[in-house]
Order: sequence, then structure tokens, then C-alpha cells
Amino acid sequence: MIVILKPHAEEKRVQALMEQIRGQGVEIHFSQGTTETILGLVGDTRHVDEDWLRASDIVADVRRVSEPYKLANRRFTPQDTHVTAGGKAIGEGAFAVIAGPCSVESEQQLLEVARAVRNSGATCLRGGAFKPRTSPYSFQGLEEEGLRLLLEARRVTGLPIVTEIMSETQLDAFADVDIIQVGARNMQNFRLLKALGQCRKPVLLKRGLSATIEELLMSAEYILAGGNDQVILCERGIRTFEPMIRNNLDISAVPVIKAKSHLPVIIDPSHAAGIAWMVGPLSRAAIAAGADGLMIEVHNNPRCALCDGAQSLDPAQFDALMGDVRRRVAFEGKALL
Amino acid sequence: MIVILKPHAEEKRVQALMEQIRGQGVEIHFSQGTTETILGLVGDTRHVDEDWLRASDIVADVRRVSEPYKLANRRFTPQDTHVTAGGKAIGEGAFAVIAGPCSVESEQQLLEVARAVRNSGATCLRGGAFKPRTSPYSFQGLEEEGLRLLLEARRVTGLPIVTEIMSETQLDAFADVDIIQVGARNMQNFRLLKALGQCRKPVLLKRGLSATIEELLMSAEYILAGGNDQVILCERGIRTFEPMIRNNLDISAVPVIKAKSHLPVIIDPSHAAGIAWMVGPLSRAAIAAGADGLMIEVHNNPRCALCDGAQSLDPAQFDALMGDVRRRVAFEGKALL
Amino acid sequence: MIVILKPHAEEKRVQALMEQIRGQGVEIHFSQGTTETILGLVGDTRHVDEDWLRASDIVADVRRVSEPYKLANRRFTPQDTHVTAGGKAIGEGAFAVIAGPCSVESEQQLLEVARAVRNSGATCLRGGAFKPRTSPYSFQGLEEEGLRLLLEARRVTGLPIVTEIMSETQLDAFADVDIIQVGARNMQNFRLLKALGQCRKPVLLKRGLSATIEELLMSAEYILAGGNDQVILCERGIRTFEPMIRNNLDISAVPVIKAKSHLPVIIDPSHAAGIAWMVGPLSRAAIAAGADGLMIEVHNNPRCALCDGAQSLDPAQFDALMGDVRRRVAFEGKALL
Amino acid sequence: MIVILKPHAEEKRVQALMEQIRGQGVEIHFSQGTTETILGLVGDTRHVDEDWLRASDIVADVRRVSEPYKLANRRFTPQDTHVTAGGKAIGEGAFAVIAGPCSVESEQQLLEVARAVRNSGATCLRGGAFKPRTSPYSFQGLEEEGLRLLLEARRVTGLPIVTEIMSETQLDAFADVDIIQVGARNMQNFRLLKALGQCRKPVLLKRGLSATIEELLMSAEYILAGGNDQVILCERGIRTFEPMIRNNLDISAVPVIKAKSHLPVIIDPSHAAGIAWMVGPLSRAAIAAGADGLMIEVHNNPRCALCDGAQSLDPAQFDALMGDVRRRVAFEGKALL
Repeated sequence: MIVILKPHAEEKRVQALMEQIRGQGVEIHFSQGTTETILGLVGDTRHVDEDWLRASDIVADVRRVSEPYKLANRRFTPQDTHVTAGGKAIGEGAFAVIAGPCSVESEQQLLEVARAVRNSGATCLRGGAFKPRTSPYSFQGLEEEGLRLLLEARRVTGLPIVTEIMSETQLDAFADVDIIQVGARNMQNFRLLKALGQCRKPVLLKRGLSATIEELLMSAEYILAGGNDQVILCERGIRTFEPMIRNNLDISAVPVIKAKSHLPVIIDPSHAAGIAWMVGPLSRAAIAAGADGLMIEVHNNPRCALCDGAQSLDPAQFDALMGDVRRRVAFEGKALL
Repeated sequence: MIVILKPHAEEKRVQALMEQIRGQGVEIHFSQGTTETILGLVGDTRHVDEDWLRASDIVADVRRVSEPYKLANRRFTPQDTHVTAGGKAIGEGAFAVIAGPCSVESEQQLLEVARAVRNSGATCLRGGAFKPRTSPYSFQGLEEEGLRLLLEARRVTGLPIVTEIMSETQLDAFADVDIIQVGARNMQNFRLLKALGQCRKPVLLKRGLSATIEELLMSAEYILAGGNDQVILCERGIRTFEPMIRNNLDISAVPVIKAKSHLPVIIDPSHAAGIAWMVGPLSRAAIAAGADGLMIEVHNNPRCALCDGAQSLDPAQFDALMGDVRRRVAFEGKALL
Repeated sequence: MIVILKPHAEEKRVQALMEQIRGQGVEIHFSQGTTETILGLVGDTRHVDEDWLRASDIVADVRRVSEPYKLANRRFTPQDTHVTAGGKAIGEGAFAVIAGPCSVESEQQLLEVARAVRNSGATCLRGGAFKPRTSPYSFQGLEEEGLRLLLEARRVTGLPIVTEIMSETQLDAFADVDIIQVGARNMQNFRLLKALGQCRKPVLLKRGLSATIEELLMSAEYILAGGNDQVILCERGIRTFEPMIRNNLDISAVPVIKAKSHLPVIIDPSHAAGIAWMVGPLSRAAIAAGADGLMIEVHNNPRCALCDGAQSLDPAQFDALMGDVRRRVAFEGKALL
Repeated sequence: MIVILKPHAEEKRVQALMEQIRGQGVEIHFSQGTTETILGLVGDTRHVDEDWLRASDIVADVRRVSEPYKLANRRFTPQDTHVTAGGKAIGEGAFAVIAGPCSVESEQQLLEVARAVRNSGATCLRGGAFKPRTSPYSFQGLEEEGLRLLLEARRVTGLPIVTEIMSETQLDAFADVDIIQVGARNMQNFRLLKALGQCRKPVLLKRGLSATIEELLMSAEYILAGGNDQVILCERGIRTFEPMIRNNLDISAVPVIKAKSHLPVIIDPSHAAGIAWMVGPLSRAAIAAGADGLMIEVHNNPRCALCDGAQSLDPAQFDALMGDVRRRVAFEGKALL
């Protein structure tokens, strides 16, 4: 961590600040120039508060050199983490496809989609029981009944299930879920993240619409700090000024996260694109960029879907996509789970 | 709502779609041009799902004409809403200043700040007991003890208190709080919004860092739809590409929200600026743009604050600001509460 | 084009507006609802000014249905355009790799890089003679001497050359250049675009840092409208809030532009990434997403480059990348030019 | 400037790098920690290239401490610069209102507007002769005839004129213009900036839609470095994700620029808002935030304006606004020029 002092800071004040910093168990290297004075803080600076430093009126600026995340940091855990659900270990070299409807609508709908995606080779079944909707007037999900149907679909197809949690109060109800999803809007619901850190279930953590990569890793750090290291990160598009695309898939996030962290990273091309015909090209880009998996919306009848129909593939389209995915995953020298 | 059909859509398919739309109680005006065909949907289109329409493969695009929010909409409630806390009615013409520390740190700290801001003329006391922090290693607030101290500070100073809730499970603990704050990161925590709709307490709803104004109004709609119309909206800066400013205060949001909605709007210049010296100019801009209030961080010793010290004013700076605010609120022909 | 009238607009005023619109050779379909009235404008609405409509105080909103670009629009030119330089036709199915140094620094440097990229299989040689630099104190390019060296490098290697123009006053000096590049900062330098429309040379048009895809296509339209249809579009990263990536590669732009336009689209992963190790993953994503080519910075000694050294590959790294690119282009069923 | 070295960088390489840096006339303070090594560069680091440093494979990161602009920097020129046009010195304490039509359309139109804004108290007359338009099919301005009419309007009203230049080739034609405007799209047209640095005319430099404040100051630095210190900066809204506002007025830019630079800053609320009714609130915010002036579009008949009619005030609206502006400028203790 680097602290840049204001020009002409009073000597006595500077000494006092340095005393306080050293009191936090950190060493200081002092560089005095003609126009600026720099304090280089070395050691474990994780607990040194930037805000506290910035509040000092002799401090001009503070720059972090080392990352604020530790457990999620590849520097300290060089080996790739694999996240295991239903006996399948998702991560570097082992590619997962999580597919299913945006929301669970009925037993018939869910089983039809579940059988279709299983037959096409999906790794896991996704489906929303509790739906975070922008409008209070939109369909909010089948809730507990939706969860029950997902378990039924797992029984029938053998696919591990992934579904979204909206509050830490639901953890008991999610006890039998294989992978608990945290949606983009809850990426910084810290009460929920802490509770997930306490449980021993895989978590699929989606990046918020305007969350930085560092913030995403810090949210993962909340879960890891609780003792749960089974976290999959998911990039699903960020908010930019471009109106032609619903959410702008941040493809660079894949190599950046793989470099910075040991956690698996998957891509959700359906939410990024917002429209079915773009799911193919974005899936292809994701595989080539090094993602560890895809999360894709499939509906037996997209035109009648209760939410996000426009971005859902129908089973035939998904089957064609899976053929392409299989060929590409093999080209990358990876195994499709 | 306008539905633009694809060129050369099959006549039979178009008729079927129109039948389905009419089945939802909506009238259609049909415009056939040489290059495009347009369906104008009129009536109560609030429940007509855009996604469902977009999923049809004969639909090229869907555009909403009327706003999706109804209870928060000035069109249907032309008169300004005032939100009452501690006997003070905040809203058009009645300007509120909510001031206090970012987080409650100790009885001495809180009482010192509370007395100072009361003496300088603040309307309400703010203070965080539960703190949403990006890092799990940062100070997370005094929690229940913090709430207790806030109630004590109210007893001593008479100021109504504003503090942030993080989960619907905390509602009982917040029973004596005057105004419940929903932070930017929880703006779309829909479980929390629904629970707040059920209670009968004023809510201060902060705009998310990348939430559109329409999304903010839809989150307010969640609370209003539950029967609670006591909602104050708060703009606190949005995320842009500009690195010199922590969050970019969206000053245009003030006139836009005042035009679109009847709810009061306040500005949080402290979080927008991220640095104390910018709180003054942004406060002045907020008053001039028509805001109904300000939310300002004040700390008795900003250099030792456990969070956000850099953006906190000390009591003397706040007192000077209040002198300026008083003059400006009077200039606008409003009353300082 | 759709015009939404304000509620309670005076009948006489509405009739007058409709008269004026019809006077511009456009038909109107009129839809009167209970809460809103909609005018559907059909025919050639390209010349109907949205601003003029919005300025009417009986108009609530205006929405375009058809795209404002015509010559660049795939709807009117369904077949893919190929852009020919040095006997090579770049476009759908024919993949180009444009490689070379950020700026031309010396004869030795340029020839060394030119020979290396030719030997590794590059299609064209790039190199900046006139450099747009944020700072007036940065190296501004060798200018005319740089152009001369590029022509020399073409003579030696046989590679067509691509270099950036900064003003329409330079067109004569660029007479022997094979492909004239318009940089991101000049994407809306309309004087330059008009001049390029008048010449008969291939143009490589880079997307501005915060230009929408529609604006990029409108800038292409300027060139096409002048009679020059040899335009290659280049996505090179957009500006977002994410600080870990210099410019955020908008990978979705590739399928969107290919759907909307017949012009070839290439990707510049070097400027997007800003750092050499990310050029590989972004190049792979670009090929998979359907791009028609890549533009890559190569320097014989990146550590001593006078600009953008951090993002330049050295010849060995470029050679390794080309091996990978060759395999992937073949996998996509395309030919590497 | 701070250079952070990679962990385990070879001693010999580090020494070599330090030698090269010292060779550029810069001193180094060396800080070796357990996890990182930091080089603090002190002295005149303006010419030390960040890219060159980043390209070294023993460098992990580079952070600038001092600003890259010098002539535009308040640190080196503490006193406010005033820009003089037509005998009026615009800058701190002296508030300017530049008003007029988006584009010059006819002698009658221009003279009518010019007389109206003069009578209402405007400081300068604006009007576009050459118009940068997104579409080649939109009205491109009256060009030379437009310039002639502006000079005529100055003769009639006595108001200094402000008009936009699009290329350095037009400088001769602009010889009689009082203030030359550089539009947002040309903020980084470096050929134009250099040419303006050579002339001795006031320049009004608009911030690009996604330009950072530092980039704006660097563009001003281009003009100042040429020897022309008569530069007014203009904030006119930035591009964000918010669809309800055309360009998001960055009000924080006013106090930030005033702190960083000695140049005057004005606000263009018309382009930011994109709609006439928002010009009032944004103007009020601009004055309160400390701007040195406003640039406002006025049209004698906004409904028939050939461009940007929606955001233009009519003369009566402008007159009412000027009454408000006069009161507010006096409240701030400034003089309306």
C-alpha cells in the first residue's frame, strides 16, 4: 500500500501518522522527493483502512498495491479449485453446462425441459423457484412448490439442480438443492453471503450488473472466509451505454478472473444477450476465452414462457448448440462433464 | 405499448398473436405499412409481459409507451407526497437535513455527533448500526448495540433516527427506528422491499449504483404496492467511467424523479463525492436542482472514523455548511425542517 | 417511426402536425387509445427529423422502428461485402490478421517486425506514422518519414499496409497506403469521413470508446454515402466502469454488427486488453464469435517501444499466437488470408 | 510516479531498470518489502513513459502520483485565468451566458434570436455554421454562409460570437470569430488542437461524451502548450447507462476542474438535458456548483428548428430563465457579464 503525502506536510504530523501506521504491525519505507513524499507500507496491509488514511489532511492519495482478497486469490492458492455437485467436479479442464427454464412453471414444463436437456448432455438443471423481478406485478415464481418440482426433476433425470436463493431465511428450504445460486442483484447481500459461508453447499455467485471484478472476488471472499470454498463465479453481462444489447458480456472477465483467482468461472450468455439468436455466438466466445462452463436458458415453449422467453432456446435449438459445444470443448482439450 | 412485427410475418400468425393479446383485456390498433407493421396496444398494459411478446418469432421489437409503475407515478397521484417522521413532514417545500456518522462507533462518539448536528439544525440523525462493507475484513458495525445507542441518542437530542436495514429478518429489531434506510446494494432485495411494504414505517430508499431511474421507481412501487406510501428516494451517485469521482452524482435525477413521481427525493453528497471538500458544492447543486433534502456524513473525528472518514465533515465544517444550506433553502422559498 | 402524443392534445394541433408529417411524403396510421394516442409513420422516414417531432409540445415521445442507416444495412444489401487490399478480399469466410508495431520508430525496427509478421503469416502490416496521443508531451510519430518507411516495408515484404490518418488534409500523403485507418477518436470526425467517401481506398473504421453500434454504422454510412463501399469495421474495446481492463472488449458487437450490416468486422484485442498476456484469450474469443479478422500489435522489443509497449507481443509470441489462430480459423471453416 | 515490481524480480534486472530510469533525469527511492518492492520516482516524471515501464516483465504496475498536465494545472498557476472575448473577461467571479440557436438557418432566424438573447442579457451569441451530425442525411449547416450571418448578427447586436470549428483547414475562415468552439466529438482531434494552440483566439473546448476529466485537461494542455492560454472548458453531459436522460450532466466536474485547473468552466445544460424543461433545473445546479457560465440553446421557433429543437428554449422561456440566472449569480456574489 502506498500513501502519498501532501506537499509541505508538517514534519510532526508526518511522524505521528507513521507511528499510527506502524502500530498496526506494518513496516514503512519512506521516500522524500522534491515535489512529493511517499510512504510505502509493506507487510500484511489487509486490515489497514484506506478510508482512515484518506481522512488525514496530510494525505494526498492512497493506492493499494496488493489485492484486498486473500482466500480467493490465486497468489496464495495457485491450484485451480473444483466445485463438486452430484459427483461432478466443475473447474479447470472440466466443462459444465447448466441448462433449464428461467422459472419453474409447472411439473409438466419442468420435466419436459429437464428430460430434454439431460438427453442433450447438460451437466446440471437450472430453474427458478423464487424469482427476483423488477416489477411487483410480474410473475414471482412458484416458490416452495417450485423447489419441490426441482427435486422431483432431479429424481427423474439424475441431474443436480441449481436454483436461486433470495434471502438467508430460505437456507433450510434449500437444504436439498445441489448448487445454490446468488443472483446478480444479491451479489452484495452480505447477510446472505455470510450465511452461505457457514453452510457447506456449492454456491454459484453471479456478478452484479455494475460490480467490478474485484468486488465480485470480495463477495466470494465473504463466503470463503466463512469456511465454504465451493464457489463458482458467473459473468452474466454488465451494464453499459450500448442499447442494442441487454447486458454487455464482459468476455475479458474470464481471463482476468482465471489469472487473479483459483475459482471456476462460468458464463451466462442467455442473460447477457437477452435474445436467443445471440446465445450461440456468445457461448462460442466463452468457451474459446477459457470459461469453465455455461448457464443457458431452455424452455419447452419459449413463446409462452412466464419470464425471459425471448432469450430462451427451445429444446431443439439447445440440442444443436450442445453438439457445437461438445466439439468446441474437445477442441480446447477439456472434458464436457 | 407498441409491438413491431417482422416484415413478411404470416397473416395467420399475426391474427393468432392479436387474439392472444386481446385475451388479456387490451385493445389493438393495427398499422400496416410498406416496410413494417405496428400493433398499438392500448388500455391497461401493465400486466402484458414484454418478454412474452419478444419471444414470438413474428415480433421484431416491443416498446413501452406508458410507465410500468403506477402507485409511484405522478400521473396518477399528482400531489406531492410528504413523509412524516418524528412529527416532521419531509417533501416538496419542506427541506430535511439528515446528518450523522457513517457508523455508530461508541456512545460517546454518537452522542457528541448527535448533539453537534442537532445544534447546527439537522432534521434527523443518521448512523449505521449494521454496515454493508465490500470486504469481510472491514468493520461490520456495532449491530444491535448500535441500534440501542441510536435510540439513546434520540432520547437525548430529540432527533428522529435513520438507520440502514440489511435483511427482512431485522424488522422487529427496527421497530423503534423512525426512518428505515435501504442501502444502494439492497435496492433490488425484493424480499426486503416486500416486507417493508407490509410495515407502516417511513422508508428511505437509496438508488443502486447502476440502477436506472425507472428501476428505482419500480423498487419504490414494491413498497407502495404493499400499502406503505411513506417512501423517500435518495440519489447517491452512479457508477461511470470517471476515476476522479467516487460515484458520479446524477443531478438530473432530481428534476426527472420530481416530474415522474410524487415521492420526495433527497441527495447524499457524501457518498457521491467520497471526499469531504466536495460535499459543499454538491449540496449547493442539490438544493438548486430542487431536492427535498440532504443526507450528510458527520464525524466528531473524521481522521479516526472506522469507515468513510475521508468523506465525513467534522462538526465545525457541518455547522458552516448548515449556515449556507439555511440561506439557500430560504432563497428557494422552502422551509428548513 | 412512432410518435406518441401527449394525453389531451388539442384536436386541431394534432391535425396540423399530421398534415406537416404527410407533407414529408410519409403515411400515418392513427391509433387512439383511452390513455394515449399513437401515430405510426410508415414509408421512407429517413429524412423525418426526430428532434423536430420532439420539439412539438403535443408530442410525448418518438421511437424509431427502422434503422437510420441504409447503405450499411444488411436488410438492403443481404450479401456480405468483401474489402480488397493488395489482392486479398477480407470478409465473411476470409480471415485477415493485421499485425505490426503501434508506431513506426525506425527503418530497422519496422523492417524487423514486418519480416517477422510476414513470416508468421500475417495478412497486412500495420504501423502508426501519425499518432493520436492523449498527451502533447508523448511521442507523436515519425509522420511523413513513417509513411515512407511503411511503403519501404511493403516493398520488402509484399504485405499491404494499414496506417492511421488524422485529418482530411493528409489524404494526398496517403495515396499509396493500402488501407486507411480511422482511429477511435476520429470515428465522428465527419469532415474526414466525407473525404474518405470521396476517395476509392479501403477504410478501416474503429469504433469510438463510447460510440454505440448504431453510431459506428452511421459513421460507416458517411463513407458509403460518398460512394466508397470498402469499409472494414473494427471493435477495439469500450469504456466501462471496470478498472482492471483498459478497454472492455465488446464481444457481442461482432454478432450484432454481422446481423445488422454486410460489412466485415475485425477485432483489435491489443488495444482492448492493454496488456500482452490477454491478447491470446481475446483473439480466441473473437474468432469464435465470428469476427472476420484481428489487428494485433507486435514489436521487436516491446520493452523499448515508444508507445503501447505493454500490450505488444514480441515476434516469438506473435508466431505462437498465429499457430493457434491458424488452427482456430480452420476449425471455423474459414480461410486465413 | 510509483513502480511496483513483481515479486522475485531478478536483482540484476532491477538494477538495470533503475539505471535506465535514472538516465531520464529522475531520482528513485527504493522500498523493499517482504511481498513487494516499490520504486518511488521523484523529480520531473512528465516524460517518463508509463507504457514503457509497464512493458518491462519485472514491473507489476505503475501509478502516477502527479498529474500529467502542467500548464493547465492549478498547482503551477494558482490564479484563475480569465478568457477575454469582445472586451468581456470570462472566469471566476464573472459569469457568462452564451445563447443562440443550435444551427444558423437563415438571416431572419439568426437576427431574431440574436436580438432576443441580447435583450434578455446574454453575454455572447452562439450558432452553428458547420454542424457535426451523426447521420449524413441530416442538415449539415449553412457552412460559410452561416459564418457570414453570424458576423452580421454581431454587427447588429454587438454580441461576441461563438461557433464550432470542425477541422484545422477552416481556421482562416474563422479569423473573425470571437470564440472558436471545439465540439465534444473533436475533443481529441489533436491536429485541430495543435492548430488552435498556434492561433491567438479564445477556444471553448467541450468535454467528449466519455472523456475523463484528466483527458479534457490534457486536450486543453495541447492548446496551452502551443502558447494559447485562452481556453474555456465546457461540461455538456457524459454517456451513462441511464436512458431517461440524453447525456448525464456531470455536475461534480465543476468543483473537480476548478480544484485541478485555473481555467474557466462552463456548463451546457441544453445538450446534457436534451429536453427544454430540464434546462432550468440544470442551469440552477450549475450556478450553485460554481460554474463560470452557461451555454444555452435558444430558437425563435423550436418546433421548426432544423436540429435539436426539443432542447431549445424559445425567446420568452429564455428571458424568464435569465431573470432567474441574474438573481442566482448575484446570490453567489458574482457579476453577470
